[in-house]
Amino acid sequence: MSSPTPQVITCKAAVAWGAGEALVMEEVQLSPPQPMEIRIKVVSTSLCRSDLSAWESHAIFPRIFGHEASGIVESVGDEVTEFKEGDHVLTVFIGECTQCRPCTSGKSNICQVLGLERKGLMHSDQKTRFSVKGKPIYHYCAVSSFSEYTVVHSGCAVKISPHAPLEKICLLSCGVAAGLGAAWNVADVSKGSTVVIFGLGTVGLSVAQGAKLRGASRIIGVDNNPQKCENAKTFGITEVVDPNSHKEPITQVIKRITDGGADFSFECVGDTDMISTALQSCCDGWGLTVTLGVPKVKPEISAHYALFLMGRTLKGSLFGGWKPKSDLPSLVDKYVNKDIQIDEYITHNLSFDDINKAFNLMKEGKCLRCVIHMPR
Amino acid sequence: MSSPTPQVITCKAAVAWGAGEALVMEEVQLSPPQPMEIRIKVVSTSLCRSDLSAWESHAIFPRIFGHEASGIVESVGDEVTEFKEGDHVLTVFIGECTQCRPCTSGKSNICQVLGLERKGLMHSDQKTRFSVKGKPIYHYCAVSSFSEYTVVHSGCAVKISPHAPLEKICLLSCGVAAGLGAAWNVADVSKGSTVVIFGLGTVGLSVAQGAKLRGASRIIGVDNNPQKCENAKTFGITEVVDPNSHKEPITQVIKRITDGGADFSFECVGDTDMISTALQSCCDGWGLTVTLGVPKVKPEISAHYALFLMGRTLKGSLFGGWKPKSDLPSLVDKYVNKDIQIDEYITHNLSFDDINKAFNLMKEGKCLRCVIHMPR
Repeated sequence: MSSPTPQVITCKAAVAWGAGEALVMEEVQLSPPQPMEIRIKVVSTSLCRSDLSAWESHAIFPRIFGHEASGIVESVGDEVTEFKEGDHVLTVFIGECTQCRPCTSGKSNICQVLGLERKGLMHSDQKTRFSVKGKPIYHYCAVSSFSEYTVVHSGCAVKISPHAPLEKICLLSCGVAAGLGAAWNVADVSKGSTVVIFGLGTVGLSVAQGAKLRGASRIIGVDNNPQKCENAKTFGITEVVDPNSHKEPITQVIKRITDGGADFSFECVGDTDMISTALQSCCDGWGLTVTLGVPKVKPEISAHYALFLMGRTLKGSLFGGWKPKSDLPSLVDKYVNKDIQIDEYITHNLSFDDINKAFNLMKEGKCLRCVIHMPR
Repeated sequence: MSSPTPQVITCKAAVAWGAGEALVMEEVQLSPPQPMEIRIKVVSTSLCRSDLSAWESHAIFPRIFGHEASGIVESVGDEVTEFKEGDHVLTVFIGECTQCRPCTSGKSNICQVLGLERKGLMHSDQKTRFSVKGKPIYHYCAVSSFSEYTVVHSGCAVKISPHAPLEKICLLSCGVAAGLGAAWNVADVSKGSTVVIFGLGTVGLSVAQGAKLRGASRIIGVDNNPQKCENAKTFGITEVVDPNSHKEPITQVIKRITDGGADFSFECVGDTDMISTALQSCCDGWGLTVTLGVPKVKPEISAHYALFLMGRTLKGSLFGGWKPKSDLPSLVDKYVNKDIQIDEYITHNLSFDDINKAFNLMKEGKCLRCVIHMPR
C-alpha cells in the first residue's frame, strides 16, 4: 500500500529576516517534496561558522539557515527510490547526483548538478519550499535545517545506520567530516609528519584528529583565542602557538620550531592572508598547504611565486573530498565503532527555542559545536 | 700515477660587464678546482631564457652567464672521487649533494646544500674562480658556461654516457629536462587528459612532448607569438590558441573549447598574472596548475580562493623535479635510444664568437634553442 500523498506542513522554523538580526521563530508553510526530493523531520542540527558568516554578510533574506543536521525521512517525492519514510539521514551541503562527470570521475566530490547552491533556491526548479503567509523564505546551502521539517533534494541527503545517535552524528554532516577528510583525502597526511593547523575551531580540530589518526608526530595548532587552545590536546594537538604571545611573525616561529617548516599546513580560519602564512609555514621541497576556510573579507589569495617554485603545493578542500553518499555511511560507522571522536566537539546543547544563544556563543568564540535539539 | 696538480688556466670567456650590455670576449683567469670541485672544458652550451632575464635585470656584474651546458672534465679538485679527467658531463643549476634532508627524502630535488645559487659565488667558499686582470668575475647559477673552461662544484655536474652527442644533450641540462619533468614528475599527466600550456618556448614545448608521451589526448598551446606557434605540432601540441585573435578573455576560450577547463595547465612564461589565468583554465574538481616560470616583474601570485575551494591545485616545478645525478643519465639514455626528442628544439647553431647573436635572437623571440659551440 503506498503512502498518502504528502501535504503542505505547517511547522516552526527560525527565520532570519535580515543580516545579523536575531532569528525569529515563525510558523512556516513547507511544500511537499517535489520529484526527486525528500521531506525530513529534523532531529538535531548544529551551528557551523558558515551559517554565521552568511547570516552576518550575505544578501539573501528572509532565509532559513542551518546545514549540519540529522533527521528522519517524513515523506518522499515522486521518482525517489533511495529513501522511504522513517529512514535516518544526514543532510549535506554538496550533493552527489552519482551521474555527472565529477561524480563518476573518481577524482572529485564536487557534483556538477548538486554542487554548492548559493541562491537560496532548490536545485530542481529554482524555487523555495518554505513560505510565511505566502511570502517565500529562501533556503541555505540546499538544506535549511533550522526548522522542524525541511525539504531537500534526495541527492543532498545520505541514508545512515538507524543505530547511530542522531544528536551526535549531525556533526559529520559538515564540520567534523570536512576536517577529517582534509587530513585523509586531500592532504593524505603521512605517519611521522609535522602538521600545522591555523584556526582551532571544530574544522581545525577535526583536521588535528585526522592527522593524529594518521600518526603525525607533531600537530601544532595556531590560534589567538586562548580558550580554544585549552582543550585542543583532546583532539591530537601536540603544541599550541598563540601568535599574540610572540614578537616574531608567526611564520618565523613555525619555521624555527619545525626546523625549516612543516610537512603539511591547513588554513581553517577563512582568511586569505592566512593562506599565504600557511604556505610560508611549510617546508621547501614538499610542503603542502590545504585551504578549507571560506574567506569572509578579501577573496584574493596573494603569495610569492618562489614559495611554489621551491616545491610547495596549495590545494583546496571542500567537504574534505568526501563524496557524501559513497563515504558518509562508513564515517558514521567509524563513530559507532569508536574509531573517531565526535562527542568532544559538542560544547553546548540547546533547545531549538534557544537558537539565538548558539549564534551568540559562536560570535564570541565560546563554543566549538552547539547542537540544537528539535522538539520531539 | 696521479695527474699533475691543476694550474690556473687562461681562456676565452664572454663577460657581461653590465645589465643588457653586449658580452665582451675576454681573456679570463680560471683557478684550479678547489676541494670537491671539478674544472670542465665546455663543449656546447645553449642560451636559456633565465640567462637573458638575469642579464637584463640582475644587479650582479661583471658576470659570466650560461648554465645549460655539456663538457669534458679537465681536472678535479681534492676529495673528488666521482669524476676523472675525460669524463663527459652535463652541468646543472641545482646540485645534488646526496646527503641533505631533501636529497635523502625521496620527495624533493631541491638540495639544501647546492640549491639555487643567487650571489654569483661558489657554494663552498663564497668566492669566484674567474678573474680578469685580478678583478673577480661572478658566476651564474653555479655554472657559468659561456667560457671555454669553467669550475663547478662536483655536485653540480652529472657524469653521462660518452656515446651521447654533447652538442645536442646540453639541452637536457636545463630547459628540455625541466619541461619533461614538469609533465612527468610534478603533474604526472595521465593518458587521455587535456593539457593547456601557456608559453611555447623550449620549456613549454618540452612539457608538450612530456604530455604527448604520456598519452594526453589534447595538448593546447597558448602563445601570442605566431612564429612560435608554427612548429609547435612537432612537439605534440594538438591545437594552438593565440590570445590576440580572440575577443573573449583567454580563460573563457579555454573553458569553452575544453568543456569547462583542462585537467592540467602549465605556466611556462614567467608571469605571475598568467598563473592565475592558468588556474582559471583548469577544471573544477581536479584541475592541476604547474608553474615553471621565474617571473621577471611582479613576484606575487594573486588568485581567487574559490579556484582552490572548487578543487584546483597549484604546484611549483623547479627543474621538473629531477634529481640531477639520480635522474639525468637515464634521460640522456632515453635520447640516445630515440625515446625523447631534443634536436627539434635546436633552431640555431652558433660559434662562441657569435654569442651576442644568440641573445638577440632570444630577445626577439626568433629561436627556441641556440646552441653555442665552443672552439675544439
